[in-house]
Amino acid sequence: MYTLIKTEGSARRGSFSTHHGVVEMPAFMNVATAGAIKGGLSALDLEEVGCQVMLCNTYHLHLRPGDEVVARRGGLGPFTAWRGPILTDSGGFQVFSLAGLRKIKEEGVTFQSHIDGRRIFMGPEESMRIQANLGSTIAMAFDECVENPAEHAYAQASSKRTIRWLARCQAEMARLKAEGKALDSRQLLFGINQGATFEDLRLDNMKEIAAMGLDGYAIGGLAVGEPAEVMYHLISVVEPEMPKDKPRYLMGVGTPGNILEGVRRGVDLFDCVMPARNARHGHVYTWQGVRNLNNQRYTEDDAPIDEGCQCPACRHFSRAYLRHLLRADEALGRRLAVLHNLYFYNRLMALIRQALDEGRFEEFYRQNVSVLDTRI
Amino acid sequence: MYTLIKTEGSARRGSFSTHHGVVEMPAFMNVATAGAIKGGLSALDLEEVGCQVMLCNTYHLHLRPGDEVVARRGGLGPFTAWRGPILTDSGGFQVFSLAGLRKIKEEGVTFQSHIDGRRIFMGPEESMRIQANLGSTIAMAFDECVENPAEHAYAQASSKRTIRWLARCQAEMARLKAEGKALDSRQLLFGINQGATFEDLRLDNMKEIAAMGLDGYAIGGLAVGEPAEVMYHLISVVEPEMPKDKPRYLMGVGTPGNILEGVRRGVDLFDCVMPARNARHGHVYTWQGVRNLNNQRYTEDDAPIDEGCQCPACRHFSRAYLRHLLRADEALGRRLAVLHNLYFYNRLMALIRQALDEGRFEEFYRQNVSVLDTRI
Repeated sequence: MYTLIKTEGSARRGSFSTHHGVVEMPAFMNVATAGAIKGGLSALDLEEVGCQVMLCNTYHLHLRPGDEVVARRGGLGPFTAWRGPILTDSGGFQVFSLAGLRKIKEEGVTFQSHIDGRRIFMGPEESMRIQANLGSTIAMAFDECVENPAEHAYAQASSKRTIRWLARCQAEMARLKAEGKALDSRQLLFGINQGATFEDLRLDNMKEIAAMGLDGYAIGGLAVGEPAEVMYHLISVVEPEMPKDKPRYLMGVGTPGNILEGVRRGVDLFDCVMPARNARHGHVYTWQGVRNLNNQRYTEDDAPIDEGCQCPACRHFSRAYLRHLLRADEALGRRLAVLHNLYFYNRLMALIRQALDEGRFEEFYRQNVSVLDTRI
Repeated sequence: MYTLIKTEGSARRGSFSTHHGVVEMPAFMNVATAGAIKGGLSALDLEEVGCQVMLCNTYHLHLRPGDEVVARRGGLGPFTAWRGPILTDSGGFQVFSLAGLRKIKEEGVTFQSHIDGRRIFMGPEESMRIQANLGSTIAMAFDECVENPAEHAYAQASSKRTIRWLARCQAEMARLKAEGKALDSRQLLFGINQGATFEDLRLDNMKEIAAMGLDGYAIGGLAVGEPAEVMYHLISVVEPEMPKDKPRYLMGVGTPGNILEGVRRGVDLFDCVMPARNARHGHVYTWQGVRNLNNQRYTEDDAPIDEGCQCPACRHFSRAYLRHLLRADEALGRRLAVLHNLYFYNRLMALIRQALDEGRFEEFYRQNVSVLDTRI
């Protein structure tokens, strides 16, 4: 259940109560694609960096180790030792970005596994069954993520089909719960707004799905190549049509600056692989901007990544040590950098919430929005 | 200072007091080649798995980040955040195994860096200066590690030269300390017994170096391809000539079985990259033998790697989860397996010490020696 605690402009301070714990919002979900954060972080490390929601990937886990294997382990929580809420994406995005030889029909999508080339069919029902097996707190509806730029006619047909798929997701989840085939009968379902970069399609789609009574609403198909300004504009276009009493999730976003802009436009929930991926390449976030630890000037720099940071890396290790580890291709360098970046993102969200609580989000936004994405 | 607490046959229960802490012996040193354990473990993780001594690599750290960089960071302890004793090898082994285009002369060895092909000269004085910069608790003498099988004449000439190099190491370390050029004036020096697989050479060498008054004595050039029985025999050949009041270190050894055999023949100190390397490949130690986590039969196995094990992996994660992570090439799988194997090795040493304390080492040896190296 979502409780709206406070607003400042369109920005929302809320609290989302789930059967696996409360998520204070706005929140950033930490991405554990195949049931583990890249860079060697466990669920216990996620707790240490202040993660509230772990996000796992339906497509990857269906292929390996198999969702039925996970179900027999008691679901993703017991399997990974994560004790909080889990969101699983629907597999849609990976089917359209990773898999080979796709064929989209009304029923769903036939595609080739990127691991072994095996042909697989996934439609709304399959995605729901897989996510029921994974036992996530929140399942995402199976959608088509259209590439930008798209033709209006194609985007419209796809958006309509995604809505029909959403209705099938609802029906299948209800059936699985009714027949005792869901690992967890309390699993929630979020719908996903699509419509490429067309205002009219985005609006029509949002109005339709808002009426369908889902547990939360996501904006999908953005941050896939279009300019950030287009993304911000489309959020503002659909936001008034998003139910006020449900969480709003901007999928796959983004930089600290993107997040501040999203919160300011009424978004509650974010996820992105970028902080972990950037970390593995030595790009680390600070309150002054993004540092590249590969830079020669850190060779003899005894300061932590970010002075005053309380993350597990900054409390013990210097830029000089991290730079050495990254250059020597030591896994520890990647791990420490990922720990730092995820801590930074979770801390950013905590400070956004605090600013909202104290009625000074606009000030916090202005102080940070142009600083945090800068390379220093 | 080494204190011999108790003996059982040739096996020794001792305590080695250094300026960076006490090492209870027999002990296994955990290998952090370039200042980090492979698999993404930090010095804090080493504390958690019961490590007593961290071993770092002179050759690797000289090449990258450079020993002078480490010296300006205050040495390896502050650089890596490890608070206990550190042993640095001399670089000799890597010069003879990793580097290209070697030329050995009386002065030392000219070789090519395996990283960038740069020509480098390293002799006893250079090795001592590098290790002085690294600030290790124990520096190892610069030696030639002769490949087995070797010609007697070559091995003899090499052994003699290694003894001349040892005297130069002693002199150079004394000079560095006297001139205030050592990072830590309390640094210790261990000599290394060589002589390939020839009893006469091993014995002559050991008698000579024993008279040189070093802080400890290592047996080098074994476990490099010769049968284990040859290694065990050569330990027993030189052991009577090793000073009783100094630690004895069998370099690069070995399996749990090798360690039990070594302890039984009077060895106090071991190191090996194997437990961490095996872990990264999914081979993990248990009290029943070595498990291969890649095995299909662990797909749905909810037990920890080793039942009853209190390591950070076994306390939270199942064989099924680890197998999934290893197959999915997730860094977390490698990290958890390495944590387990190093914990197992350190625990093995703790139980060996306890058995010695309680006068039942022979019983402990018999129960475990043929079990621990078995594949299950």
